[in-house]
Amino acid sequence: MSTLPPPLEALRWNDDGLLPAIVQDAETAEVLMLAWMDRESLARTLASGETHFYSRSRRKLWHKGATSGHTQQVVQLRVDCDSDVLLLTVRQTGGACHAGYRSCFFREWTQAGEWHTSAELVFNPEHVYR
Amino acid sequence: MSTLPPPLEALRWNDDGLLPAIVQDAETAEVLMLAWMDRESLARTLASGETHFYSRSRRKLWHKGATSGHTQQVVQLRVDCDSDVLLLTVRQTGGACHAGYRSCFFREWTQAGEWHTSAELVFNPEHVYR
Repeated sequence: MSTLPPPLEALRWNDDGLLPAIVQDAETAEVLMLAWMDRESLARTLASGETHFYSRSRRKLWHKGATSGHTQQVVQLRVDCDSDVLLLTVRQTGGACHAGYRSCFFREWTQAGEWHTSAELVFNPEHVYR
Repeated sequence: MSTLPPPLEALRWNDDGLLPAIVQDAETAEVLMLAWMDRESLARTLASGETHFYSRSRRKLWHKGATSGHTQQVVQLRVDCDSDVLLLTVRQTGGACHAGYRSCFFREWTQAGEWHTSAELVFNPEHVYR
């Protein structure tokens, strides 16, 4: 069990001990993904310099890129005014999205009232996750 | 009560009927804030072209900028791969943050192990909220 410095311990962790963490590309400023962190994943992120999250569905710590190799090197950590949302700027290897896109936000809402995929695949998920 | 088109109704709203919505500046790509939307606030956002959110603390619909005048004109709505996070790019009037900053993420974690305010005030909150 890792420990956090007091200013991070004092963040407004929710009832499940989690905070949403927005991940933004340090070079392009593209928003790549949102995931959740518990104290342990934030401590490991700071200690290793690579993003770690807490998977709510699998109920466990998750090192981003451990399977795919698509790790995220942390450049900067920011917090919002209410101390309950984190923003990490990162250098992304490969793509952030398990579906093969650079960003998880590859779909855009159109005037026609439907989702349109407006991004190119950057890797083939069938080759990466097997 | 507003209704949403089926693809938006089918988003993975959480048990409280909410989704996190990241708001990004359409011009600078700066991440401005994260707030929560219910179906009603998303419907009103699309109908009006200005962001509306659901305040979890006040338990009510909230038109961003209604008090301050610092509204957000929606340029684009995106959704993530899991259909449980929204990303809105907006034209921000004034500042997004009630503390007087352009972005709510005005504090940065430093090597010294503390939060450092690395942004300038863009308005005086005492003049805006009274």
